[in-house]
Amino acid sequence: MQVKKPLILVTNDDGITAPGIRNLIRIMNTFGEVYVVAPDSPQSGMGHAITINDTLFCNKITISKDEPQQEYSCSGTPVDCVKIAVNEILKRKPDLCVSGINHGSNASINVIYSGTMSAAVEAGTQGIPSIGFSLLDYSLEADFSPAEKFIKQITRQCLQNGLPKGVVLNVNIPKGKINGIKVCRQANGYWKEDFDKRTSPLGKDYYWLTGEFVNKDNGEDTDIWALEQGYISIVPAQFDLTAHHAIKDINSWNLK
Amino acid sequence: MQVKKPLILVTNDDGITAPGIRNLIRIMNTFGEVYVVAPDSPQSGMGHAITINDTLFCNKITISKDEPQQEYSCSGTPVDCVKIAVNEILKRKPDLCVSGINHGSNASINVIYSGTMSAAVEAGTQGIPSIGFSLLDYSLEADFSPAEKFIKQITRQCLQNGLPKGVVLNVNIPKGKINGIKVCRQANGYWKEDFDKRTSPLGKDYYWLTGEFVNKDNGEDTDIWALEQGYISIVPAQFDLTAHHAIKDINSWNLK
Repeated sequence: MQVKKPLILVTNDDGITAPGIRNLIRIMNTFGEVYVVAPDSPQSGMGHAITINDTLFCNKITISKDEPQQEYSCSGTPVDCVKIAVNEILKRKPDLCVSGINHGSNASINVIYSGTMSAAVEAGTQGIPSIGFSLLDYSLEADFSPAEKFIKQITRQCLQNGLPKGVVLNVNIPKGKINGIKVCRQANGYWKEDFDKRTSPLGKDYYWLTGEFVNKDNGEDTDIWALEQGYISIVPAQFDLTAHHAIKDINSWNLK
Repeated sequence: MQVKKPLILVTNDDGITAPGIRNLIRIMNTFGEVYVVAPDSPQSGMGHAITINDTLFCNKITISKDEPQQEYSCSGTPVDCVKIAVNEILKRKPDLCVSGINHGSNASINVIYSGTMSAAVEAGTQGIPSIGFSLLDYSLEADFSPAEKFIKQITRQCLQNGLPKGVVLNVNIPKGKINGIKVCRQANGYWKEDFDKRTSPLGKDYYWLTGEFVNKDNGEDTDIWALEQGYISIVPAQFDLTAHHAIKDINSWNLK
């Protein structure tokens, strides 16, 4: 009996030619039939944005003639890519969606700004088991090789076990030597901004957004802690944002 | 003794001139000192996007000479507006951030696509009590008047009681007669896309994203149910996305 190969959708937010996604495609080719639908340009920080007031282009392209995957380059956001892949390109619902490998961390609160993770979350809302992978190295020359065996292990386990309903995985990978894998909660942190104010040649003020991540969480069960100890962090993330513990509080308000 | 007036930040995603925000500003002027920092153009569906590879403009403007609020029009996304307000414009951390009134629903899964709610969430990450308001009427001529006394009541209660840590409120308001307020959980739903494929005059294929919201949830404790019964829904929403219940599951994987 021949076992049917899993159908795997690969996307990212750094753009279809970024080294991170090229490595992820190569790894996914060892697991199944791979379709790539990814942005034609960098889309970092796009969060869960979708294109509702503009057209979308999505073109079949060949980047690596010697590799077996099908590839499409899309003018939209990472979330657009997942929507168009599932509805227009793939012949059936994929068995897995992987997003990344992002060049840079998506640990802690970064998950809500991240195009990489938003693509994974979008696939999750459509009932597709989904994983976002990020490496803590912004460089285009980042070394993805120490991560490879761990990405394979997580992918294999996800294909074997599936994921709990309404849950996607946020996987962050430390730079350099990797000590193992920890399943974590998202650390409590935020971005403290520091806008760089400048004046244009025509005398008009403008700003560049810059900032610094602040970790307010000393817990040893968080993604930030695991990464600092050289572990890969896996945070199971949900898109039901309901703060169930707060319903009772708000119900005690005078709302009559 | 004179009581210090609360400092209130108002933003939205439909743009600073949209009727929804003009109504919200008018209501907030009855509670405190109001600063408006809102997008200069519509930003619906921008989710939690931020501007990291481009400049931001933020200009003081006057839209209503007879109203007391300070107003700034910003070239960025709703989340950019909150960041620039808190860091560059306001003299201190505001006591409250309100976003909206959105023209259209942000119930159920819409919360993750919504610029309105992402602005509220961003303020929440900075420790600011925060509420997103949405009316289930896309029309520019929507009637906001039935909602007014309820928005006042929710705002008053929020200023009096504060909000639980890490929680913001997602308030959706039915169109027409309002039967009261219900505190709810987010209904389990998703968007089923139906791309409209066309060909440009130059022969190139392109797509328009269209779709239909699918509610998979029959619970009578959900926001969708409350709205269908003519109630305002309040969902306490959190930005810690950790699916705590799933940590044990994933820990049972073979990750050694």
